[in-house]
Formats: sequence, structure tokens, C-alpha cells
Amino acid sequence: MNDGLTIRPFTFSIDLENCRITDADNHIKRNLADMKNQYFYKEAYDKMMKEDNALLYEVYEKLVPEKSGELIQGLSIVHPGKVGKEYFMTKGHFHSIIDTAELYLCLKGKGMMVMETPEGEWAIEEMIPNKAVYVPGKWAHRSVNISDTDLVTLFIYPADAGHDYGTIKEKSFRKIVIEENGKPAIMDNPMWNL
Amino acid sequence: MNDGLTIRPFTFSIDLENCRITDADNHIKRNLADMKNQYFYKEAYDKMMKEDNALLYEVYEKLVPEKSGELIQGLSIVHPGKVGKEYFMTKGHFHSIIDTAELYLCLKGKGMMVMETPEGEWAIEEMIPNKAVYVPGKWAHRSVNISDTDLVTLFIYPADAGHDYGTIKEKSFRKIVIEENGKPAIMDNPMWNL
Repeated sequence: MNDGLTIRPFTFSIDLENCRITDADNHIKRNLADMKNQYFYKEAYDKMMKEDNALLYEVYEKLVPEKSGELIQGLSIVHPGKVGKEYFMTKGHFHSIIDTAELYLCLKGKGMMVMETPEGEWAIEEMIPNKAVYVPGKWAHRSVNISDTDLVTLFIYPADAGHDYGTIKEKSFRKIVIEENGKPAIMDNPMWNL
Repeated sequence: MNDGLTIRPFTFSIDLENCRITDADNHIKRNLADMKNQYFYKEAYDKMMKEDNALLYEVYEKLVPEKSGELIQGLSIVHPGKVGKEYFMTKGHFHSIIDTAELYLCLKGKGMMVMETPEGEWAIEEMIPNKAVYVPGKWAHRSVNISDTDLVTLFIYPADAGHDYGTIKEKSFRKIVIEENGKPAIMDNPMWNL
């Protein structure tokens, strides 16, 4: 039965070996070109762009009606690599309905969740397998891969939340995660613009 | 900063070996006595109760403000066993705000998610590790352990959803899962009362 008001239960499986979910409704790919002006190391970015518009991250989603009470979920895969000293990362976003949370469960790899409020408060949490990061309402968030393998996380958020990428594109995050002396380090972002 | 309006990001880890999460705010235990009149095999139930008020399932929760947009999450552990032919299971519930969904990700063991709408439409989905079951808004749901080991699932639902256990306690589910010839089988529930 699908009367347009109710949806039926469904399932999906996480294929960790191939870094995907079964029966995804949506498969988003983000390449280097999609991240123009988001990396601090611009010369490195331009040089990489000349060589290859590398695939940085992918998202598989299961979709449901975008209404309050339902949940959207999927798998995020951030590939390993760096632009200059800065690790591959997602664009990062607020939710359009800003007071909506998101849960990330790390399944593979190692990363950092970089978070920030509109007032400039920030937080960074490490992601390792079987560890979950709760991103409360109001907190913009970006996944950063600090490992040599794919960073794979399951995400779940309210179906009516929506995405606001524009605010981050405009003002960036206060902190960036770079490799320094072979280790991840948190650095003030010179491009940050509250 | 905690001004009562915003909460800060937090993390928790899933300890699959010990079937718990770290830093749980809440640990619920449900024993046989809590499931009075929920099992069809009443003689078996009474006999078991005389021997031991066995622990059937446990829930660890991370709590957040119970407001729209936030998410509550935790770990559900249904222990293995049967009452007569009927496998150990959770009470099952609707949400108080009935149009709210819940996602279950199976992490260990093998089970069935038994689901039903107020109109009596039903669905049953198998749960195995790395498989997720999406329970849409309006669907009551119960986890059943059909294996010889713990059934462990991560659950996520809208923080304002609430729980309605009373409706299921009153009318039960349309279908039950029993062991027949050494295998799980779905049976019409003689106690069902729409």
C-alpha cells in the first residue's frame, strides 16, 4: 500500500568492502572542482586541478518523504588524500531548518568531524570505527579523512532538515585539519569569515 | 557552553563485545515479569516465571532535549531464548507522536523486526549485521531475536517522538515469530485484537 501519506518499511544493507549501500535512491559524487575556494592551499589546489579533477567523496542516500518525523539516512565515503597540507573533506553544511541534528556512525577509516555554530563556537571530534558523533541542531558539520583509507560513516538526519551549503561556502569553517609532521593538526582557518 | 537552548556535540562508542555503549545516560532492563500477557504461550510463561524472572532485553540510551529536530539514539540488546515456541522479543511500541520514524541498524546476531500500522497492515523484515530496517512513521515495531546469541541493534529516532507501549499491550501484534521445526516461522497471533 502506498497512499502517498504512509510509506512502507524498507531495508538496506551496508557493503563495507565496496563502500556502498544496497538499493540507494541517490548517489552523489563530489570532485575537486566542486570544492573551488574551499581549500586554503590554493596553489596546491590549482596544480591538482590541472592534473586531475579527483573524486573527493561520495554519498549514497535512502530517500523518504521530506516531512517532519521521517529520517533520511545513507553512507558517506571520503576518499584519502590532501590538497596541500589539508586533508580531503566534505563541503560541510548547516541544515536549512537549522535546529535539526545529525548522527554519524563511523564504520571504517579514521577522521575528524569539524563542527561550528553560527556564533562561531566550534568543536572537533575524532571518528573511528564503532564511534558515533552526535551533531546537535544549529551545528554546521564537515567530515575530514585523516587516514590513508576511505572514511566511511553512516548518517541519519530528520527528513525535513534540508541542506544549507551556501553559508559555509561563504564563510568557511573556523578550524581546518591539516597534516603537520606526519600527524593531523587543528589550525585556525585564515579564510574564516564570521 | 550550555545555555539550555543549544547542546554541544558529543560522542559515544559501541562496544560490541560487551553489548553496550560508552557513556550511556540510561540503561533499561526488561525481564520476563515486564512482559506479562504479551506471550501467547502462557503455561510456558508461568513455568518460566516460577523458575527465574529472566532478563529478556536491555536498552542503552544517549539522551538529548526531547524537542523536534534532535535525535535520540542507543543500543538495543535482545537476549536469546524462547517462551514456549515464541522467541524473546521487546514489548514493541508506537511513538506517542505517531508520525515519527525509527532506524534500526543490526550490528550482531539475527532477528526479525515485526511492524504494524493502526489499520492492521503488517510487515516483517529480517535483521542481520550491517542491515538496516527503516520503520516509517505510523508503524509500531518490535524486535525479535531468532538466533542463539544476543541480537544487537543501534536505533535512532526523533527526540520528541515519545513511546506508546499501551496500545500494543492492549491489542498486541497481528503476527508473532515462533520456532517451528527448528526454524523461525511467522504465525497469526491468536491474541491479536485490532
